[in-house]
Amino acid sequence: MPHFTYTDLHTFTYNIFKKMGCPSHDAELAADVLLKADLRGVDSHGVARLVGYVRLWEKKRINVRPAIQIVHETPSTAVIDGDGGLGLLVAPFAMKVAMEKAHSAGTGWVSVRNSNHFGIAGYHAMMSLEKDMIGLAMTNASPLVAPTFATERMLGTNPIAVAIPADQQPPFVADFATTTAANGKLEMLQRKNEQAPLGWVQDMQGNASTNPHELSKGGALLPLGSDRDRGSHKGYCLGSIVDIFSAVFSGANYGPWVPPFVSFLPLSKDPVGEGIGHFLGAMRIDAFRPADEFKRNMDQWIARFRSATPVADQERVLIPGDPEREMESIRLKEGIPLLEPIVEDLTALAKRFDMSFIE
Amino acid sequence: MPHFTYTDLHTFTYNIFKKMGCPSHDAELAADVLLKADLRGVDSHGVARLVGYVRLWEKKRINVRPAIQIVHETPSTAVIDGDGGLGLLVAPFAMKVAMEKAHSAGTGWVSVRNSNHFGIAGYHAMMSLEKDMIGLAMTNASPLVAPTFATERMLGTNPIAVAIPADQQPPFVADFATTTAANGKLEMLQRKNEQAPLGWVQDMQGNASTNPHELSKGGALLPLGSDRDRGSHKGYCLGSIVDIFSAVFSGANYGPWVPPFVSFLPLSKDPVGEGIGHFLGAMRIDAFRPADEFKRNMDQWIARFRSATPVADQERVLIPGDPEREMESIRLKEGIPLLEPIVEDLTALAKRFDMSFIE
Repeated sequence: MPHFTYTDLHTFTYNIFKKMGCPSHDAELAADVLLKADLRGVDSHGVARLVGYVRLWEKKRINVRPAIQIVHETPSTAVIDGDGGLGLLVAPFAMKVAMEKAHSAGTGWVSVRNSNHFGIAGYHAMMSLEKDMIGLAMTNASPLVAPTFATERMLGTNPIAVAIPADQQPPFVADFATTTAANGKLEMLQRKNEQAPLGWVQDMQGNASTNPHELSKGGALLPLGSDRDRGSHKGYCLGSIVDIFSAVFSGANYGPWVPPFVSFLPLSKDPVGEGIGHFLGAMRIDAFRPADEFKRNMDQWIARFRSATPVADQERVLIPGDPEREMESIRLKEGIPLLEPIVEDLTALAKRFDMSFIE
Repeated sequence: MPHFTYTDLHTFTYNIFKKMGCPSHDAELAADVLLKADLRGVDSHGVARLVGYVRLWEKKRINVRPAIQIVHETPSTAVIDGDGGLGLLVAPFAMKVAMEKAHSAGTGWVSVRNSNHFGIAGYHAMMSLEKDMIGLAMTNASPLVAPTFATERMLGTNPIAVAIPADQQPPFVADFATTTAANGKLEMLQRKNEQAPLGWVQDMQGNASTNPHELSKGGALLPLGSDRDRGSHKGYCLGSIVDIFSAVFSGANYGPWVPPFVSFLPLSKDPVGEGIGHFLGAMRIDAFRPADEFKRNMDQWIARFRSATPVADQERVLIPGDPEREMESIRLKEGIPLLEPIVEDLTALAKRFDMSFIE
């Protein structure tokens, strides 16, 4: 598989956002957020999505000169209107507001409407770490997931990220879709022509299936837990909570009304809100406990869990964030691998803007 | 199965707490919290646990005259020391503080140390509903759960509850253990001598098992998701987040150090904090959006999800909180069923205090 340096892909992505009309500092930040996904191994949310953002912009569903605004606030909360901007920019704006609120009130909680897809949730949650704050980020997304006992797609993969600082240990960073598996993993199986494990998807009648193409035939992704016996109603609860905090709090579209990321699908004719919604949170550690005490305890927590006895066929027990951090350090050194179809997409995208893709 | 009225069981429970030395209003509240579990069908967390609380008290692990105190606070946060009191009392105290903070600052977040088991998380989260607030409640618990790839028990079933008010519709109330199945469900299978579905437990080597007695042989409960392929690392993340918010924020015991609920197990000789920990949150709806707008949208959210097309063998799609609310209305009318061994336990308990159980 061809590999590309972070710098080359970042520069290319920056240039594309500039060509779309983003101001330089916006193009820079949007490229940072997108490329962070590639670095951390979340290939489905990185530069592979750049073409998708461009197509939404071509359909005038993304505003590259948004006036992002606080429309309501209290000491610890705010609602932000993203003015149809890139979620890659709206979410960091909102996270900064959450952190300012946390600075003065102890915690800050921001619900966002009228936004678009925001890349990986982890990027936004991790913004809090250097300020000795815990960061939370969630977003709703276009409906691909059937609630327990349903055949209809009602929820997105609605991810949750939580970043918690430690002292000597690297931070605890959880970042996961509230489904059994993220849609990106399913797309990888489609490309490789492999079957999915049972519990990832159901067919259009709601039967368990291992066919990774089930979504194109009216099937659905399954909530974390897979089926009722194994707790899928809990994954359904989690996805619903993300949807409500992100969209009912803010006045964005929710549930089956959330607009699609793919530009060839039409927008709903009876929207219940504006754009998609996010929810960002920041909690100042020393609003609870002196930060050094907390971080020493986190070091102990992490060290103890990392030293838990592993099962026979595994070397070790992982801490949330370990795999992504290790991937980031490898890819910074060895480059970011891109599948051939992605390289072709990006080459065509370059041509569309009279540029060339990385030589 | 013998049935008992809510009033009879409540009076009995109240009297036991009085005999333990609780002031009347504390005994009243503790009985309310415990009985709410029986009403809502969470039989494992109700009056069946009364004997367990008494045994902890006999071992001097529960303080029936606690001086529950705020030990640190900011406009939107507080840390509370439960002084070894019943979690059934400490958690409502903490939730009230969270709601007061939300009243003035928009949201309130309270981490609690030095507490004991707090009954069902849903009770505390639901306290917020009549104030037009969203309520959150979580707690850590004694270690029964193995992280993904581990054989050691490191986490409790660490439940999360989120209560969200609506207008005409009943509220959305999610209340779930962050494991595939709660320990109470496993205990029910043990009594009935039935096998567990795959994905609930593993044996002491970490192999999948359907034996509901696996925990007594060194096995462990599994995080929501069951196994790595089906996202157990996400359940592990959730349980960990609950543990950290409840205990590292507050200075309670965390992970494998959390004290046991059963009194015959010894306390850790090297505790890392005090008692067990909880985390309570309240968000005032109108800190985000006018409450009537929010609640109208929630009505629409709930109605739309409830009308989602069900799979062939199911009548309907449920909203979180539906089954428990329906159970509550049935049990208020028809009484609360108790298994014979529970009735025997309670009869013995009555005798211990020179009382008689319900005639």
